[in-house]
Amino acid sequence: MPVIELHVIDGYTDDDKSRLCAVLTDAVRLVVPAPPDAVTVLIHEVAAAGYMRGRQHRTPAPALPDPTQAVRAFLAAMEAREIDRAREMLGAGFVMEFPGTGPLHRLEDLIDWAKDRYRFVTKTYEGFDALQSQGDAAIVYCRGTLSGEWPNGTAFDGIRFIDRFEVTGGLITKQDVWNDIAEMKDTK
Amino acid sequence: MPVIELHVIDGYTDDDKSRLCAVLTDAVRLVVPAPPDAVTVLIHEVAAAGYMRGRQHRTPAPALPDPTQAVRAFLAAMEAREIDRAREMLGAGFVMEFPGTGPLHRLEDLIDWAKDRYRFVTKTYEGFDALQSQGDAAIVYCRGTLSGEWPNGTAFDGIRFIDRFEVTGGLITKQDVWNDIAEMKDTK
Amino acid sequence: MPVIELHVIDGYTDDDKSRLCAVLTDAVRLVVPAPPDAVTVLIHEVAAAGYMRGRQHRTPAPALPDPTQAVRAFLAAMEAREIDRAREMLGAGFVMEFPGTGPLHRLEDLIDWAKDRYRFVTKTYEGFDALQSQGDAAIVYCRGTLSGEWPNGTAFDGIRFIDRFEVTGGLITKQDVWNDIAEMKDTK
Amino acid sequence: MPVIELHVIDGYTDDDKSRLCAVLTDAVRLVVPAPPDAVTVLIHEVAAAGYMRGRQHRTPAPALPDPTQAVRAFLAAMEAREIDRAREMLGAGFVMEFPGTGPLHRLEDLIDWAKDRYRFVTKTYEGFDALQSQGDAAIVYCRGTLSGEWPNGTAFDGIRFIDRFEVTGGLITKQDVWNDIAEMKDTK
Amino acid sequence: MPVIELHVIDGYTDDDKSRLCAVLTDAVRLVVPAPPDAVTVLIHEVAAAGYMRGRQHRTPAPALPDPTQAVRAFLAAMEAREIDRAREMLGAGFVMEFPGTGPLHRLEDLIDWAKDRYRFVTKTYEGFDALQSQGDAAIVYCRGTLSGEWPNGTAFDGIRFIDRFEVTGGLITKQDVWNDIAEMKDTK
Amino acid sequence: MPVIELHVIDGYTDDDKSRLCAVLTDAVRLVVPAPPDAVTVLIHEVAAAGYMRGRQHRTPAPALPDPTQAVRAFLAAMEAREIDRAREMLGAGFVMEFPGTGPLHRLEDLIDWAKDRYRFVTKTYEGFDALQSQGDAAIVYCRGTLSGEWPNGTAFDGIRFIDRFEVTGGLITKQDVWNDIAEMKDTK
Repeated sequence: MPVIELHVIDGYTDDDKSRLCAVLTDAVRLVVPAPPDAVTVLIHEVAAAGYMRGRQHRTPAPALPDPTQAVRAFLAAMEAREIDRAREMLGAGFVMEFPGTGPLHRLEDLIDWAKDRYRFVTKTYEGFDALQSQGDAAIVYCRGTLSGEWPNGTAFDGIRFIDRFEVTGGLITKQDVWNDIAEMKDTK
Repeated sequence: MPVIELHVIDGYTDDDKSRLCAVLTDAVRLVVPAPPDAVTVLIHEVAAAGYMRGRQHRTPAPALPDPTQAVRAFLAAMEAREIDRAREMLGAGFVMEFPGTGPLHRLEDLIDWAKDRYRFVTKTYEGFDALQSQGDAAIVYCRGTLSGEWPNGTAFDGIRFIDRFEVTGGLITKQDVWNDIAEMKDTK
Repeated sequence: MPVIELHVIDGYTDDDKSRLCAVLTDAVRLVVPAPPDAVTVLIHEVAAAGYMRGRQHRTPAPALPDPTQAVRAFLAAMEAREIDRAREMLGAGFVMEFPGTGPLHRLEDLIDWAKDRYRFVTKTYEGFDALQSQGDAAIVYCRGTLSGEWPNGTAFDGIRFIDRFEVTGGLITKQDVWNDIAEMKDTK
Repeated sequence: MPVIELHVIDGYTDDDKSRLCAVLTDAVRLVVPAPPDAVTVLIHEVAAAGYMRGRQHRTPAPALPDPTQAVRAFLAAMEAREIDRAREMLGAGFVMEFPGTGPLHRLEDLIDWAKDRYRFVTKTYEGFDALQSQGDAAIVYCRGTLSGEWPNGTAFDGIRFIDRFEVTGGLITKQDVWNDIAEMKDTK
Repeated sequence: MPVIELHVIDGYTDDDKSRLCAVLTDAVRLVVPAPPDAVTVLIHEVAAAGYMRGRQHRTPAPALPDPTQAVRAFLAAMEAREIDRAREMLGAGFVMEFPGTGPLHRLEDLIDWAKDRYRFVTKTYEGFDALQSQGDAAIVYCRGTLSGEWPNGTAFDGIRFIDRFEVTGGLITKQDVWNDIAEMKDTK
Repeated sequence: MPVIELHVIDGYTDDDKSRLCAVLTDAVRLVVPAPPDAVTVLIHEVAAAGYMRGRQHRTPAPALPDPTQAVRAFLAAMEAREIDRAREMLGAGFVMEFPGTGPLHRLEDLIDWAKDRYRFVTKTYEGFDALQSQGDAAIVYCRGTLSGEWPNGTAFDGIRFIDRFEVTGGLITKQDVWNDIAEMKDTK
């Protein structure tokens, strides 16, 4: 049943508006048990000259990039071992933690650490979930299974993993990784 | 800058409206880089007789319970080993997977399995994240650290974990758990 | 797709609001080829103190009675030959015209005229249509078939008729009647 | 007093919007006894990318043609005996009924039937009324007087008629006609 | 033509809403040359739980007293020489200036100063104008004519005056007075 | 907290909209003790074809010129003794009154009268206040101090003044002036 009207200043792209419609639809359904069909979203765009808060016109910042896309691009760069490209996607204060690593700040440290763990690893994605924190960071979860080769060349696959990212202003500022690699090595 | 107007049929509680305001604020900030202060939400309530879709009045279902609260309650019951209480919180088709368990459908099976793993375990929460899927399920993530005792009585703590829940109509329908227990056992 | 918001001053009944929702749904569909399910109506009620036009508060008149109900009541009274009751439903300047009568102003004149036409007549309704004219009158059409007895006692039925009413302020101000009685008498 | 806001997706013509304003004004006045001057209509147009229902963007169908214009064009074609042109204006399942004809499905059948009734007939219109049914059909009433020549060459005029049309997707799907021709022939 | 919708949190009195409607009507007419009749104001009240800015509910402060009424009450007290009552209506930092006085901070100083000017003075009001400054103060102008007695007992009247007040939170914080008393004394 | 939505027909300039936002912000703050930051204004523009009142489309008149600018221009022309230019800024029925002049209708009369009062006079502005009357006139106050030369060549300055203007359709229709010149001449 809910109808949502969003008023923004002119200038968002069709893709931005589309993302806004989708996140507002989902948000209201977290509380109201309406099927998606019962949720309508309308975005009203006002001219910059027709918007004032605090007796001042405002210049809207461009929309944030889709944090899920940011995470996908980072994961693709890492999987391809394009470390330079991946590094450009990191924001200030970046920190990551993998099972057993403790906090790491440089992608190289992760790669060093991983050397003894597996020759390579490929992610098969089951799903991504994105939401906004109350702060500035967007949070993106991705989960699925890992396949690859152990250091001894044996293949593995189907190992569950989940990553949690914080994305601030389109840049990755935090990555936390959990997976069943240790579990699997037990059973090796 | 964004102003969000939500139109719903009369009858939501103050707490429901409060939750709606919050999730709509967060949702819009996933796309628009506005500080929270620049986001205004207004909920307009119309009488049931003043709402029609498809030339029919509608009766709004009561708001969904807060899925984060549902997950907290379930985790508390499990931690207290109040299995009967926990079972009442499960929805149809419930399935859970812990590191190395494969899919389990009964809480008892988990408890059996865990016996050889630890004597007891306590969760310290670092944070919860909740969002709505495009389907009927709400998704709740919780993460933090585990402390407890290994089967041999040795204490452990600080082991990272993350749980992903699906909550449908207020009931837990899926739980996926990752943690560093196997990793830690390696280092024992 | 259309969403209609109607703003009125507080004080309309649920039935009034229900009628408003329905007529607005229908109206928009006269132009936009949306299925009814795609049309949403929201009625916002503002306090009398929160409405001003021309720098003056306004006192909304009560809703008009449903003109279709007014016509139904009038037709029922006429069919039951409760002329006094029917007369109370007439507005200033009432005029009616039946096939061959020319304009009549008094119900008695119609009854006199009808005496030679049929002993009695009963209407079976196929449908009512109501709309607002650009003036003050609502227009109601009703159509269906007549059954009854000719002056010689022979029964008739299935004779098509249509009535057009003008209803002003809830009172009948004009009735125009067409039917196939003359046609049928030809075939008698 | 009422203010009506209509939200539609961008793309309707000025004429469409004008018709929407007019029908919404009339609709609300069927219930609320406001003079036209007290009724304000505002049409808000949102970009297609700024409209979502059921988490899907929608493509609005073009506005329906004005059903009154459709009826006028059909009546003009019939009066001019341009049967081919008239036939193109008919929708699937077309049926018409004139006094004494029973249901007819082909324009030719009507013309055959009318041959014995009058040499020709011309309509003088007193008024048209259009409204939307709860289904897909628009309903158009037109009424006025007939003039023409009887089969014997005698002229007639001033004979009351009323037509009821159903117009679906801009095509005529039903015509019901009542008039006083039989009545007049009695008095011939 | 303009329609103004004001959204406020529930809890304003009818008088507050009435004042809001009036000032909004006037404000828009400062720019748009619409006759008052063409300006419609609607005040929508939302529950406190249905309003959020910056992800926080807000508690609206009570409406400000009408600054024109505050000025009228102050002027009445001063004219009646009810200095204690008048003093209670003064806000922090109160300052006043009359022709030739320079800035004064205490009502007594004004009274001392006036002693040599006139025995008493009475104001006949021609009009009040009130507006909001961009700061916290409302500004009220009042103008008209003075009558009274010169120190020598001669009567005077018809002397033009104008007062400008600043009213902050309902209290008088500034009064500036101009009049033609000196002009008149010249012509005495 | 207040959010103001203004609906106007398309066609106002950015400057018009900016002025509308500002006056609406100020207006609401005359009643609601909200800091400016808590007041949001949104101007929605509808196509002329999407606006109807009284079942008629309307053609909005262009925005009124800013009355404060009109007053500033008039005062500048008068100060520069560009009487022809000043005269073009006067509306029908123009009347002005200065201390001791009584009502004057022609700028020349003022200049004649002033000759014996001062050689020239220059205004230093402390502030302008503008508001809309309930009638057609905007009201503009300006105040500050006068400097110049007395007829005998002595310089003066710091003499307080206030002017009240009525501006109708962008033209000055009334000017009332008060100042302390007579007061100062006393003290000369």
